[in-house]
Amino acid sequence: MIPPDQGNNATDQVERLIALLAKLPGMGRRSARRAALRLLRDPAGLMLPLADAMRSTAEAVRPCRLCGNLDTVDPCRICTDPNRDQEVLCVVEGVADLWALERARVHRGLYHVLGGVLSALSGVGPEDLRVDPLLARVSDGHVREVILALPATVDGATTAHYLHDRLRPTGASVTRLAQGVPMGGALDVMDDGTLAAALKARRPA
Amino acid sequence: MIPPDQGNNATDQVERLIALLAKLPGMGRRSARRAALRLLRDPAGLMLPLADAMRSTAEAVRPCRLCGNLDTVDPCRICTDPNRDQEVLCVVEGVADLWALERARVHRGLYHVLGGVLSALSGVGPEDLRVDPLLARVSDGHVREVILALPATVDGATTAHYLHDRLRPTGASVTRLAQGVPMGGALDVMDDGTLAAALKARRPA
Repeated sequence: MIPPDQGNNATDQVERLIALLAKLPGMGRRSARRAALRLLRDPAGLMLPLADAMRSTAEAVRPCRLCGNLDTVDPCRICTDPNRDQEVLCVVEGVADLWALERARVHRGLYHVLGGVLSALSGVGPEDLRVDPLLARVSDGHVREVILALPATVDGATTAHYLHDRLRPTGASVTRLAQGVPMGGALDVMDDGTLAAALKARRPA
Repeated sequence: MIPPDQGNNATDQVERLIALLAKLPGMGRRSARRAALRLLRDPAGLMLPLADAMRSTAEAVRPCRLCGNLDTVDPCRICTDPNRDQEVLCVVEGVADLWALERARVHRGLYHVLGGVLSALSGVGPEDLRVDPLLARVSDGHVREVILALPATVDGATTAHYLHDRLRPTGASVTRLAQGVPMGGALDVMDDGTLAAALKARRPA
């Protein structure tokens, strides 16, 4: 380890900024340095506005107590939107997936953010996820359908199975996203699992 | 264009944060969203410290009036370091290159940050770069050698030629970085220009 102020004349302050930027996903040490330089080149136009946006967002945004979505109000604007179907609940792994579905504007019901998926390997059990709050919401009796929009991975499928079992007593119908060839997907680059799933779930043309 | 609060339930505040993050080099819209989520997941541990680091850095760090390096003091710590050779000046395109040379600990003289290279295509002329301050520094008579550590590109070579011409009257010796095969570089993946330069500049083994 070369001490920052020996191998590098960047001040401790800049080093600290780089270290924090490097914690962002997709950022390595090298790209964090480039980002720091970009910020240093435009303090008034980028660095201070970004600092302010982070501070005010950190202070304003919190998880919704009902669904786990992130918003400046709690319950969030989705949960309190009278135009949304309160009887259909879409279960997602995280907020990123909720945002993706909202961008696609395909789901007009409510959401439930699980906060992860079950994983024996990573030691994630049901108690680590927002499973009990989900059961409580569905047991209220207002929910007609629970859509499991979990990742198409082994852990995602395990979690869907588990939730299906736990949700059975509530009487709500439990559905899953269809699996198949994605839009625009060329068959020759699809993996075998996708092709098998797409063939198995084939429908009349 | 889908309005942020229609196609996406992320608040305007989060949208603004994402838009600012997307301005960082190497960040696209998608990775900025992932970065925003990572920040939102850890407000106290990452988002607020990063906001503070940006604010304090923006307020503290400024370009050195002598060499153009970024530091919290002006003149910077390199320019005022009595252990460095005041008679050797290394000319670099930007602060990133200065940092790279400092990390390698190979130059014990001073620096001069040009702020770019000449480019007919991008319309960058000598008046856009810190050329006059360089000539003033060298004309003082204290500078024995000017090392042109400019990028090994057409624009970098053009700039080096131009600076060599302008520096001739000062009497200082002007040198350039050697070109050749980089350390650990396999010959079969080198481009022709590098191989040609390395062969031309061959030395006794």
